[in-house]
Amino acid sequence: MIDLYTAATPNGFKASVMLEEVGLPYEVRRLDLAAKEQKQDWFLAINPNGRIPAIVDRDNDNFAVFESGAILIYLAEKTGKLMPSDPKGRSEVIQWLMFQMGGLGPMMGQANAFFRYWHEVYQPGIDRYQNESRRLLTVLDTRLNDHEYLAGDYSIADIANWCWARSHAWGGINVDGLDNLKRWIDQIAARPAAQRGINVPPRVHDDKQSVEAAKAILQK
Amino acid sequence: MIDLYTAATPNGFKASVMLEEVGLPYEVRRLDLAAKEQKQDWFLAINPNGRIPAIVDRDNDNFAVFESGAILIYLAEKTGKLMPSDPKGRSEVIQWLMFQMGGLGPMMGQANAFFRYWHEVYQPGIDRYQNESRRLLTVLDTRLNDHEYLAGDYSIADIANWCWARSHAWGGINVDGLDNLKRWIDQIAARPAAQRGINVPPRVHDDKQSVEAAKAILQK
Repeated sequence: MIDLYTAATPNGFKASVMLEEVGLPYEVRRLDLAAKEQKQDWFLAINPNGRIPAIVDRDNDNFAVFESGAILIYLAEKTGKLMPSDPKGRSEVIQWLMFQMGGLGPMMGQANAFFRYWHEVYQPGIDRYQNESRRLLTVLDTRLNDHEYLAGDYSIADIANWCWARSHAWGGINVDGLDNLKRWIDQIAARPAAQRGINVPPRVHDDKQSVEAAKAILQK
Repeated sequence: MIDLYTAATPNGFKASVMLEEVGLPYEVRRLDLAAKEQKQDWFLAINPNGRIPAIVDRDNDNFAVFESGAILIYLAEKTGKLMPSDPKGRSEVIQWLMFQMGGLGPMMGQANAFFRYWHEVYQPGIDRYQNESRRLLTVLDTRLNDHEYLAGDYSIADIANWCWARSHAWGGINVDGLDNLKRWIDQIAARPAAQRGINVPPRVHDDKQSVEAAKAILQK
């Protein structure tokens, strides 16, 4: 059994989509980000960075894993799924995973911050991060022109990038003309495991609460 | 033989410090970022994201690897050095590597952008990224209070975080009181391989050119 500490954010969804795909049993522990539950001592013992998601693998001496990218690699290696075992195929998956971890995620996150949560309209900041996010989504679009998935078969690289790319509208990022990207977003969205994963934890359907949670993330 | 495509930036240094540590022979190909050499078609065939560093492993069918975090994992696995092989030790290294890739690097990068290269003084932007960078460096400091290195022995997690953490002054980030962090920065700085790695490619000693290159990175 895996304990999943999470909240309804793109990084959280990476872990839940993965757990659904590989079929490992897990229990969801939703953290109240607005109440800064992720900064409490008991959780810092699991993730010293005080952010979601994190997992604890009860079947491996309660081993804790933080950082969504590390969770994906850990679960892929634990189950032998969604990452090839040959060195080249494996590295290609890790390259596109790192592209998301170091590029797409942080830049779309900043676009969300300046476009949606900032205390004032600061257009140069909005432009900076929307333009960079569009550039990164265009890199994905180009790759997907002649690849069904980012790196070989459907993999953790797709899960990581999809969980962010699908939410481009939230940051006001223009994806006009990125037809390969849209095809791939829709293709993954049709997967039952992806559909289940993005409903973990179940939506509160309370926009005000969502915005408060997002502001809390912004403030960290 | 490894071909290393790089420039004098924290992400570039990760690859050169690693190559120096593991002792693999490599040839340096310096890219002129100000001239946008990294966006030329020949380089996009190596890294579709058009950024440094990237490597080509001539001894592995000219296999190309982009994203500094993926390069570190590839070289660690190729050589069996600087990352443990047991699943838990390996995952801990990957967790702290991802902490750098998804957190410390992007946030210190934005601090540099707003503090040093932005077209105007926008204090809320400077504050946002300096504060978040300080928070992340404090997470490292806390970890290093009772750990000599971030995850077991000296590893790729240390290389990745050190290449950014050491340049805190460039982004105007206050590290007062983070004595464990300073101890660890100095400890790694004393390693001959680290000293060689951060001089790859050799410094131009031309501040104007450095600033132009940095602005080019900012504009991507």
